[in-house]
Amino acid sequence: MPNNLNNIERASTIIEALPYIQKFRGKVVVIKYGGNAMISPELSDAVMEDIIMLYLMGIKVVLVHGGGPEINDMLKKIGKKSVFKNGLRYTDEETMYVVQSVLCGKVNKDLVSTIVRKGAKAMGLCGMDNALLSAKALDRGDGEDYGLVGELVEVNTDVLIDAMENNYIPVVASVAHGIDGNNAYNINADTAAAKIASALKAEKLILLTDTQGVLKDPSDPSSLIKRIYVYQIKRYIDEGVVTGGMIPKLTCCAEAINGGVTRTHILDGRVPHSIIVEMLTDEGAGTMIL
Amino acid sequence: MPNNLNNIERASTIIEALPYIQKFRGKVVVIKYGGNAMISPELSDAVMEDIIMLYLMGIKVVLVHGGGPEINDMLKKIGKKSVFKNGLRYTDEETMYVVQSVLCGKVNKDLVSTIVRKGAKAMGLCGMDNALLSAKALDRGDGEDYGLVGELVEVNTDVLIDAMENNYIPVVASVAHGIDGNNAYNINADTAAAKIASALKAEKLILLTDTQGVLKDPSDPSSLIKRIYVYQIKRYIDEGVVTGGMIPKLTCCAEAINGGVTRTHILDGRVPHSIIVEMLTDEGAGTMIL
Amino acid sequence: MPNNLNNIERASTIIEALPYIQKFRGKVVVIKYGGNAMISPELSDAVMEDIIMLYLMGIKVVLVHGGGPEINDMLKKIGKKSVFKNGLRYTDEETMYVVQSVLCGKVNKDLVSTIVRKGAKAMGLCGMDNALLSAKALDRGDGEDYGLVGELVEVNTDVLIDAMENNYIPVVASVAHGIDGNNAYNINADTAAAKIASALKAEKLILLTDTQGVLKDPSDPSSLIKRIYVYQIKRYIDEGVVTGGMIPKLTCCAEAINGGVTRTHILDGRVPHSIIVEMLTDEGAGTMIL
Amino acid sequence: MPNNLNNIERASTIIEALPYIQKFRGKVVVIKYGGNAMISPELSDAVMEDIIMLYLMGIKVVLVHGGGPEINDMLKKIGKKSVFKNGLRYTDEETMYVVQSVLCGKVNKDLVSTIVRKGAKAMGLCGMDNALLSAKALDRGDGEDYGLVGELVEVNTDVLIDAMENNYIPVVASVAHGIDGNNAYNINADTAAAKIASALKAEKLILLTDTQGVLKDPSDPSSLIKRIYVYQIKRYIDEGVVTGGMIPKLTCCAEAINGGVTRTHILDGRVPHSIIVEMLTDEGAGTMIL
Amino acid sequence: MPNNLNNIERASTIIEALPYIQKFRGKVVVIKYGGNAMISPELSDAVMEDIIMLYLMGIKVVLVHGGGPEINDMLKKIGKKSVFKNGLRYTDEETMYVVQSVLCGKVNKDLVSTIVRKGAKAMGLCGMDNALLSAKALDRGDGEDYGLVGELVEVNTDVLIDAMENNYIPVVASVAHGIDGNNAYNINADTAAAKIASALKAEKLILLTDTQGVLKDPSDPSSLIKRIYVYQIKRYIDEGVVTGGMIPKLTCCAEAINGGVTRTHILDGRVPHSIIVEMLTDEGAGTMIL
Amino acid sequence: MPNNLNNIERASTIIEALPYIQKFRGKVVVIKYGGNAMISPELSDAVMEDIIMLYLMGIKVVLVHGGGPEINDMLKKIGKKSVFKNGLRYTDEETMYVVQSVLCGKVNKDLVSTIVRKGAKAMGLCGMDNALLSAKALDRGDGEDYGLVGELVEVNTDVLIDAMENNYIPVVASVAHGIDGNNAYNINADTAAAKIASALKAEKLILLTDTQGVLKDPSDPSSLIKRIYVYQIKRYIDEGVVTGGMIPKLTCCAEAINGGVTRTHILDGRVPHSIIVEMLTDEGAGTMIL
Repeated sequence: MPNNLNNIERASTIIEALPYIQKFRGKVVVIKYGGNAMISPELSDAVMEDIIMLYLMGIKVVLVHGGGPEINDMLKKIGKKSVFKNGLRYTDEETMYVVQSVLCGKVNKDLVSTIVRKGAKAMGLCGMDNALLSAKALDRGDGEDYGLVGELVEVNTDVLIDAMENNYIPVVASVAHGIDGNNAYNINADTAAAKIASALKAEKLILLTDTQGVLKDPSDPSSLIKRIYVYQIKRYIDEGVVTGGMIPKLTCCAEAINGGVTRTHILDGRVPHSIIVEMLTDEGAGTMIL
Repeated sequence: MPNNLNNIERASTIIEALPYIQKFRGKVVVIKYGGNAMISPELSDAVMEDIIMLYLMGIKVVLVHGGGPEINDMLKKIGKKSVFKNGLRYTDEETMYVVQSVLCGKVNKDLVSTIVRKGAKAMGLCGMDNALLSAKALDRGDGEDYGLVGELVEVNTDVLIDAMENNYIPVVASVAHGIDGNNAYNINADTAAAKIASALKAEKLILLTDTQGVLKDPSDPSSLIKRIYVYQIKRYIDEGVVTGGMIPKLTCCAEAINGGVTRTHILDGRVPHSIIVEMLTDEGAGTMIL
Repeated sequence: MPNNLNNIERASTIIEALPYIQKFRGKVVVIKYGGNAMISPELSDAVMEDIIMLYLMGIKVVLVHGGGPEINDMLKKIGKKSVFKNGLRYTDEETMYVVQSVLCGKVNKDLVSTIVRKGAKAMGLCGMDNALLSAKALDRGDGEDYGLVGELVEVNTDVLIDAMENNYIPVVASVAHGIDGNNAYNINADTAAAKIASALKAEKLILLTDTQGVLKDPSDPSSLIKRIYVYQIKRYIDEGVVTGGMIPKLTCCAEAINGGVTRTHILDGRVPHSIIVEMLTDEGAGTMIL
Repeated sequence: MPNNLNNIERASTIIEALPYIQKFRGKVVVIKYGGNAMISPELSDAVMEDIIMLYLMGIKVVLVHGGGPEINDMLKKIGKKSVFKNGLRYTDEETMYVVQSVLCGKVNKDLVSTIVRKGAKAMGLCGMDNALLSAKALDRGDGEDYGLVGELVEVNTDVLIDAMENNYIPVVASVAHGIDGNNAYNINADTAAAKIASALKAEKLILLTDTQGVLKDPSDPSSLIKRIYVYQIKRYIDEGVVTGGMIPKLTCCAEAINGGVTRTHILDGRVPHSIIVEMLTDEGAGTMIL
Repeated sequence: MPNNLNNIERASTIIEALPYIQKFRGKVVVIKYGGNAMISPELSDAVMEDIIMLYLMGIKVVLVHGGGPEINDMLKKIGKKSVFKNGLRYTDEETMYVVQSVLCGKVNKDLVSTIVRKGAKAMGLCGMDNALLSAKALDRGDGEDYGLVGELVEVNTDVLIDAMENNYIPVVASVAHGIDGNNAYNINADTAAAKIASALKAEKLILLTDTQGVLKDPSDPSSLIKRIYVYQIKRYIDEGVVTGGMIPKLTCCAEAINGGVTRTHILDGRVPHSIIVEMLTDEGAGTMIL
Repeated sequence: MPNNLNNIERASTIIEALPYIQKFRGKVVVIKYGGNAMISPELSDAVMEDIIMLYLMGIKVVLVHGGGPEINDMLKKIGKKSVFKNGLRYTDEETMYVVQSVLCGKVNKDLVSTIVRKGAKAMGLCGMDNALLSAKALDRGDGEDYGLVGELVEVNTDVLIDAMENNYIPVVASVAHGIDGNNAYNINADTAAAKIASALKAEKLILLTDTQGVLKDPSDPSSLIKRIYVYQIKRYIDEGVVTGGMIPKLTCCAEAINGGVTRTHILDGRVPHSIIVEMLTDEGAGTMIL
């Protein structure tokens, strides 16, 4: 912390945020929260403070989250072994029971509690509240049954809009309401965030990750690519610049852009206040996909 | 089902509900849901239909629930042994983790999902959403530590009122926001329902139970006491008419009445549509405490 | 009345209405009231109760009525003889004086009074209030003068919408504001109801009559035609299935359907609660024209 | 008409009304309409124009009326003989039928129609609409039965307030909703106007009559008493200055003043635009009771 | 003043305004105020009374004004000599300082004060408030620099609409917000009024002048042209009927008509209450351009 | 400017303002603007940015200003000599003309223009708009005539509340509406700000000055008194700690505190962003009077 600053310097720094606040005021920003930013209490606190700061400046934040390691801990505790099919974890009913409980009941409500303790209004929701997220069983066309892994078929943002109009920060767990039975479905949180951002025609979608962003050379932090246009993504994948888990993240961003979101960002959740850095300073952070 | 009725008889039966609908329209009714009505899918369906019917008639329903046997099932799965102190289960952090997950994430959201599937708007909340229910560690004055068993210190109904004004049925899990730390607390659902009913100055508090109501002679169903005045409760307990688990239920009702609730009811959740019977027919059901 | 029902059966019967209430909630239903349902106090009470029940369920009801035998009684009292031209009663000024007085002042306000006594808000209107119904002298192109028999030229539903938004049941007497002089005009109540239903894009138009509906064989109650499509009407008339007073009623229904009303019904007003039977049970009643 | 005025003189005359418009803007004025002003079409037109002018200037007018000679004409037509008891006409059911029909259906709706034709919004109501005026059988304590002559027991102004908020001029026929049976009651229109004015805490109550106001010497028009204080009324009656039909009118005014009305007026309805003269010029007209 | 009128004549005169009030109610009228009407206290009072009368009748008035002789007086006081270029006064910074001060601070606020003293709500604005009028340096294409004489490039009526919705009469000084620097610009008041009228789609634009209107023969007051159609203007100029300062006034009116204003008027501000004469009597005044 | 900060440090600095924003959100802060902060363009820009920042954070700012040296410049230009009576400048009509023009027309609207250019909504008002500030001729009880120096007798904040509800920053020139004639009055800006703050029950009143605050030893900047309680003021004056122009400033603050303002501050307007320093950092600035 810059505690060597005098008050005038502090005030100047705050004032420099003015044009950014004016730009984003009244706009919707969807933040997908996960990774280290979720595990470390310090980082988690910093993210919640960033969100409350945006909220106080009149920016409408929707926080979407997955489950982090808490689901695995609980699955381990009940002695559940995971079965993988084509690289995807098969979700049986017992697993889904744990996923839904931990995600919607523990992780989600703890985030809400943190925000409330820090002085803002928040409400914990999941895809089942007013059928915010509707899904059916995933069908990859490979004839394989992935159990309760779902694919989103509809987003009904009414409950989010009602929440934001009443000045709540909606916190959304990525579990969906099943339309082909009484089931709930497990949904990828990046995808949920991207679909929600599209449905809300958000100004920004921010994916918090455990990387700096997209690096040309993974071993060289200075090789960060600051800006990727949607049409470049395929080439970066083909060239092997974008690999592994970054591929679906970029795909989510591309879909959000195509769905009407203005800017999407892959930010480093390991850096405290990276959201504020990206949104309220002139340097930006991570990789912007547009 | 009275499928031997012709349509005119059906219509007459519906019309007979008219004065009751007029009486309760626009009023708040808090329903504590638990016991068999929660375990049997048929009974659960009937309760949800009753709630939606009241909602469509312009009655404002708040549904409060505990966890039923699902919490115990999960505790068993993870091999947790319960420790009891003075008849009260000590709630350690691991237990509370399961309680919160199952209650707020599984039971709560499944109820919401059922209501939404039946065509009404619903929202799943717990005491942590906007600090709806605030609690501190239970202090019975016996010097004993009961862990994360909480006692309610404040009810903030804003989030319920916002939900009802936007036409959602709020479904509330009885887990509270801790004010003396970062903890969540386990709360008795009857108590939570009674406090919420008082805070909302509800017209009615209905506790769904696995008994017919208060019986003079437990072995004789025809000995049901239809009406108990608050001042009679002590005498009934002294005389041994009211015993065991019925004592705290009557205490909750008495507190609700003292808190400004007009009528409270102990209804038999094992009888389908007992809420509609109580509210929309002239016979009533169970025991009314007033 | 099904007084042999126990309370659970009663509750089940009420609950069966759930999907119908959900379907019609917030929709407009225009009911033309006349015939025996208007003369018999018991039937009249039943109709008013049906209307209040729909109103309490959030359905917006507009009640349109003619004058029944009360006009003839008064005309007889003042010794007025009716003159008929081409089957239509010539309406001179003295007759119109009686029609307007009895319809707008006696029949209309008595209906309002009954609804108010039963606990709902109601307001008695006619075509002259805010020029709800505007008419000119009927011109059938036969060069004949029918006096103050009017044909509708405009419907201004503002006063109905204002009334419904303030939660009044509007009760409308079928007398129109003249646009070609200072006159009021006598209007057929079925036509007025159909035009109002079209102007409001109502979900339903219900004509209460003294028949079961359209019968294939008038002597056989079991020959009821449950559903007639607009394009079939001409054929039914040509074949002599539909005759006499039923022809203009079907024509009204056809015009309402063409004007944007979803469903129209010819119901038997002699059967108590036939409106509730039609709207809230799965069998329906009378003949539906669509 | 002052058609010898040039336009500048006309404009000046209009401008002189400015302070009066400012004074009464947003205030409620209740006008009891009757006598010659009701019978002569020219005078009636002038009254309606005055009312519309006040309405356009933002003054909230409620027009209350009785039946004039039209009721007697109709009673005569049906050959009804009136029976008088202690100077009061006994109202049997047949008479009440005619009163209600003619008052609420003919006189009321014709007034509404005139106002609508002149370009303002109006709505025709009576005491039965939303139970605006509730009455029971008159009991003078003399043991006499006066049939359906009623005495007012309650005024519910909701329907008037709703009408005025939606910018309608409410026109009210003095027939009341009976609370001791299914009856309607005949009510004195001056009394109805005074009670409505009190209930609305009106700025003014204006009674249009067929006299100049209260005259010291009935044969001398220049002996008009311009101002009477409530405490003076008894003396004027004792001295024989106020006699006959003027006594109940002054009593109505006194009750209105005691009920919270600021000013009451007895105006000459035979003079065209006397309402405008009284309200928008500096001389005033008739007798003011305060 | 027509003080020889009796009250009935006064009332009749007021009533004659009824159809005009009904016609203009709820409409916007933009009045450009200047010339003698601004200098003479009596005429100024009359104009303010006219405006308040229109306001009380529900007409929405926007008052736009220039500076009259007060600017010249102040320029003279500070010893400023005016430089003219091609007939246009060059506005340097010192001149603009005086223009803005006197116009926005003295003339504007004095008008507001007068209206407020006469009992209406008023608010003093100029083109800089919320950037109501945006301008850049005038470019006539002649290569000449006219200093801070501006030409309007945008009108943002939000501040006027907000003011009118809160029931203020907005009074607007014709000084504009510069978009090409930190400057304010001097704007012709007729042009400002015409642009504001167009932007508000006003019903009327009224230019108060020191002439009777357009005269065929300037020496003959009876040769007033009452109505000019936009397509006739060019011919009138070509024929020398319209000359000098009247040309830009007619051009403003033509632009307003083309911009969606219904009627424009050139009125004689030297005649008291000429606005009321034009708007509320059947003869009209001055020249109407349409 | 702290341009040696990296982005994370910047973000942290912004986040540290969180609790202060939460504390002041939705509250009213009245800022009296004058002195060097008004003369230097850099300082003026900084003050406007501070105000916009507060506004964006949901704090309701009212900016009150006097005239600075601009009035004297103009008085000098027109050759006006000031006459002083008992230390107070006598304000004759010519002087008042200049004061009103420059204050309400030039200084006020230029401030508005600056705020608008920086991207916020602003509206320039003075005491004459809707009679925001009403005054009469100053009467010190010394029999002396001070001309158009006024003393405030009433504050009507309606126009400020309307402006703030429509999201404008109201900028108020300290000229008052005279109630004892057609005059405007010159008012001390500190007094106007204090009275407005009291009338609005503001959270804070901030007086920007050309001193650091109240110093124990004027020659020693480190002797700043950070906090003065109202009851201490008299003693500080008696002891000679508070002298000269600081006395009326402290008196204003005391009156504001007595009038219901929570905190008042004397801040150094020569330090850029001193408002942000005081309001959003933990050190505060200047002297707080409470």
